[in-house]
Amino acid sequence: MTFAEKLTASTLSHNSLLCVGLDPPQELVDRLGFADYAQFNRAIIEATGDHVCAYKPQFAHYASVGREKDLEATIAAIRRHLPDIPVILDAKRGDIGNTAIQYAREVFERYQVDAATVNPYMGLDTLEPFVRYADRGVLVLVKTSNPGSKDFQELELASGEPLYMAVAEAVARLGPNVGFVIGATYPEQLRALRARFPDTVFLVPGVGAQRADVAQVVSAGIDRDGKGIVINASRAILLADEGTSGRQAYLAAVERAARALRDEINVFRRRGAIATNPSLI
Amino acid sequence: MTFAEKLTASTLSHNSLLCVGLDPPQELVDRLGFADYAQFNRAIIEATGDHVCAYKPQFAHYASVGREKDLEATIAAIRRHLPDIPVILDAKRGDIGNTAIQYAREVFERYQVDAATVNPYMGLDTLEPFVRYADRGVLVLVKTSNPGSKDFQELELASGEPLYMAVAEAVARLGPNVGFVIGATYPEQLRALRARFPDTVFLVPGVGAQRADVAQVVSAGIDRDGKGIVINASRAILLADEGTSGRQAYLAAVERAARALRDEINVFRRRGAIATNPSLI
Repeated sequence: MTFAEKLTASTLSHNSLLCVGLDPPQELVDRLGFADYAQFNRAIIEATGDHVCAYKPQFAHYASVGREKDLEATIAAIRRHLPDIPVILDAKRGDIGNTAIQYAREVFERYQVDAATVNPYMGLDTLEPFVRYADRGVLVLVKTSNPGSKDFQELELASGEPLYMAVAEAVARLGPNVGFVIGATYPEQLRALRARFPDTVFLVPGVGAQRADVAQVVSAGIDRDGKGIVINASRAILLADEGTSGRQAYLAAVERAARALRDEINVFRRRGAIATNPSLI
Repeated sequence: MTFAEKLTASTLSHNSLLCVGLDPPQELVDRLGFADYAQFNRAIIEATGDHVCAYKPQFAHYASVGREKDLEATIAAIRRHLPDIPVILDAKRGDIGNTAIQYAREVFERYQVDAATVNPYMGLDTLEPFVRYADRGVLVLVKTSNPGSKDFQELELASGEPLYMAVAEAVARLGPNVGFVIGATYPEQLRALRARFPDTVFLVPGVGAQRADVAQVVSAGIDRDGKGIVINASRAILLADEGTSGRQAYLAAVERAARALRDEINVFRRRGAIATNPSLI
């Protein structure tokens, strides 16, 4: 089963395009008395499991404090409780030949995730060791959600197109398991990329804390079957109720936030899908 | 003391522009009976310490097999035995705001290295959290050593210049602690960058296993004082004697390889420095 197939199955079975980012906020983990990041994540997974199509742990939050074991335990917990839900490791790897092989081994063998994010700046040969894992997804940074993504990604090339479009075109040719990372904060670019790549999986972060417009994102990003995007929210879900003092109230707020965002996405998803593909009515 | 100052001091005291990459080849570590990567690295550090201006562990080689503890122990060993030698963590990090802060914390607080490599594709705001550590070096990928670096880094912009030059110009403005990574395999681009950035520190990998020409690299890369570059070799040193069966013979070969490369670099370094700055005769 490929990553795209697994994602389609979880999107349909959970009726969701929502991915929850597992980036434990240290202060909150401590205040609510969780033993470690893995225990916190297990509670989040239990609270949100019915509403998501994927989970996306962000590597930096574990690496900065030496908690790789918690990352491993988190991935194992998803496998155990929700084996049909794909896991995307957001580590934005990128390096030359021999080293890229080691990074591909890290994400796909050590952490055994279904997909990983990678950075294309170093060139196509640096992505090939990842793409060779044909049953895994390789999500290449194309147009990222931050304000500074315009610094280089939007530079106009001599050919007249922006750099991010040249990157998308080149990496898409590497294999059918290549997807794109496109920030929700750039719906115009998202729409342009969907027009040119009707079948590519898009990971779209930036909804929620980064305040992208859900309606715009969904209508710009979905494919003609009303899927093909994974909309990630991290802080919007994990910090849904910062003021709460008890675990139970906090987890209930997290559950509500995930459900509400999933449902909000689905409203626009149905409208958008019907607009582009009336046979879905 | 800034990274550049520490590097200048070690370059002068060890009369060397050579950096040894600490990327333990698993098979060799096993065959020679080292207990772990840290023990192997300690032996390499003892054998090469007199000949280097810096060490550069490559993150992937530790992360792929869950050996972060060996990376920590290696850095601690360099601090203990060679406190004047700067350590560069080659991890090619890059991510948005909050996450970039976590990555900067990882490299500069958890691993406490003097400098780290970062990837500029996501934009200037993603590099700022690293640059804020004013006493550390931030080595930005500009023109990498692999064949595929031409895929995007050399794309011609509408302005007429290649992407890598626009990246170099933008990131150099972020702060005096920003340096560039430029592959030894591209001496022309190295020369062009040195002409435009006379005072920037360049990390130059690709000598040795990647077969760049040492004479060309040195003459293209050194600043007017005969320094300003860190020439990294990993496999050329660590695989100096693959056929050997004993530890002692292996470490002697490693020592010889490091010394020979340091000396070879210095021959061209003196010639190049005198050519550009005759007052050094």
